[in-house]
Amino acid sequence: MKKLQMNKLINIINTSLNKSIQSSPLKTNLEESMKYSLNAGGKRIRPVILLLTLKMLNKDYQQGLNSALALEMIHTYSLIHDDLPAMDNDDYRRGKLTNHKVYGEWKAILAGDALLTKAFELVSNDTTIEDSVKVSIIKRLSKASGHLGMVGGQALDMESEGKSIRLETLESIHETKTGALLNFSVMAAVDIAQVEQNIAKNLDEFSHHLGMMFQIKDDLLDVYGDESKLGKKVGSDIVNHKSTYVSLLGKEGAEEKLNNHQYLAMNCLNQISDQYDTSELSDIVDLFYNRDH
Amino acid sequence: MKKLQMNKLINIINTSLNKSIQSSPLKTNLEESMKYSLNAGGKRIRPVILLLTLKMLNKDYQQGLNSALALEMIHTYSLIHDDLPAMDNDDYRRGKLTNHKVYGEWKAILAGDALLTKAFELVSNDTTIEDSVKVSIIKRLSKASGHLGMVGGQALDMESEGKSIRLETLESIHETKTGALLNFSVMAAVDIAQVEQNIAKNLDEFSHHLGMMFQIKDDLLDVYGDESKLGKKVGSDIVNHKSTYVSLLGKEGAEEKLNNHQYLAMNCLNQISDQYDTSELSDIVDLFYNRDH
Repeated sequence: MKKLQMNKLINIINTSLNKSIQSSPLKTNLEESMKYSLNAGGKRIRPVILLLTLKMLNKDYQQGLNSALALEMIHTYSLIHDDLPAMDNDDYRRGKLTNHKVYGEWKAILAGDALLTKAFELVSNDTTIEDSVKVSIIKRLSKASGHLGMVGGQALDMESEGKSIRLETLESIHETKTGALLNFSVMAAVDIAQVEQNIAKNLDEFSHHLGMMFQIKDDLLDVYGDESKLGKKVGSDIVNHKSTYVSLLGKEGAEEKLNNHQYLAMNCLNQISDQYDTSELSDIVDLFYNRDH
Repeated sequence: MKKLQMNKLINIINTSLNKSIQSSPLKTNLEESMKYSLNAGGKRIRPVILLLTLKMLNKDYQQGLNSALALEMIHTYSLIHDDLPAMDNDDYRRGKLTNHKVYGEWKAILAGDALLTKAFELVSNDTTIEDSVKVSIIKRLSKASGHLGMVGGQALDMESEGKSIRLETLESIHETKTGALLNFSVMAAVDIAQVEQNIAKNLDEFSHHLGMMFQIKDDLLDVYGDESKLGKKVGSDIVNHKSTYVSLLGKEGAEEKLNNHQYLAMNCLNQISDQYDTSELSDIVDLFYNRDH
């Protein structure tokens, strides 16, 4: 990808994220703790995919900005809560102290709650899209991130810890825990651009393969990745007795599955490439396939 | 109030709350834990006020039902998170074990997250109101319950624990922590009924006095209430070194403030009583004034 283009989008997202948290007259440092996690080194891949999909569909990125910020806020809140002592009990994430290690546990819980709430405020306050589109996006976002989506996936993941699970269960976890928000990244743009049914269906499928690629690659990197590039220790899934694509299918099996989803994702893009410039989304597929961190 | 009317509304709310949580194909008991707290003896006062305000404004209660359920879900999630060991560390609420005592801490956190998310899903999926009204309600609900509202108030409350605070800070805590959602109870009905500006302003003020009454009465009951009626021990604010209206103003000062807000709340209703039948909302004022639990 034109790295420049992607960096430009990331800059816009970073600046807008910080601006979107007004300081409160209540004078607690809750807002500081919300911003701490928003600025803790996230790669912004979800909001970038949303904005690039919108661009591909010939719409101005501004129309997707609030939805993209909302998405990043929900992703960020989920990390804050996942890191809590009662869940994964992580002291560090991306080389920085986790929210509760800096601000304490109760404030981390509240910062997460506030970010989740803020996400819906942002979409409802969007001035660039019509009410009907806002409602579609809020429907999609709440479903993707709630008990039938991300939160449900996290619950299943927690319950599966230390157990050997079947491939089917592993796929359920990933379709909900990480897949649902990646699906939203693409489909929020579809809601905004209001494309025809067959294009929407194609992009829905595309996002599914993208989500699967993301997770299989994650599992491969956790065993075979380079610690200096990953910025974290490899082997954590083995230490935590976590079932992964690698533990269930072996290295070759996982790689074959990754290749297959990469092929199918590209196939989706090829089917619409006479109508749209799919080059940037196909760069995302490459990025997901080749990433080393 | 026609107790029958109120009980009828409570029954509708209870039935609809349970129906609104679909079971998930993920087969965890996350949904069970969400329903546990939804059914843990809440008095449904917020959703009832919403529906009664709507009725007063001559609209069908059905148009407020999803907003009322959303409101009760947000109230319920806030109790689950407030009860957590990292916050108030309560084992019981309304005589029943708290969510984390039954389902464990991580599931309680996730049940709260899922209920908060579900609230926005419910409003967005409402089939009885227009998209523009849904958007107004989501704006209002997210602001009332986020870092500038309820969550911010909880943060300030936590930070004030064990400190002696000024009356001004105490009022900030209550305006946000409990007042913001009570304001929503009334103003969501205003959004749905789309009444004129002056009526909206009047009801906004009414809800403010109602919120203040609620909290002052709470503080009075915590010292002078009857344990057998309250269903909990009195004196917990003193044990927890919590500043309250009673500790800052004394019994008489707190009662005078309660009387004053009761007078002003009734005054708001009197101003619109030639246009609307305010009898049921004035019954709510009586209820807030006289409640013993």
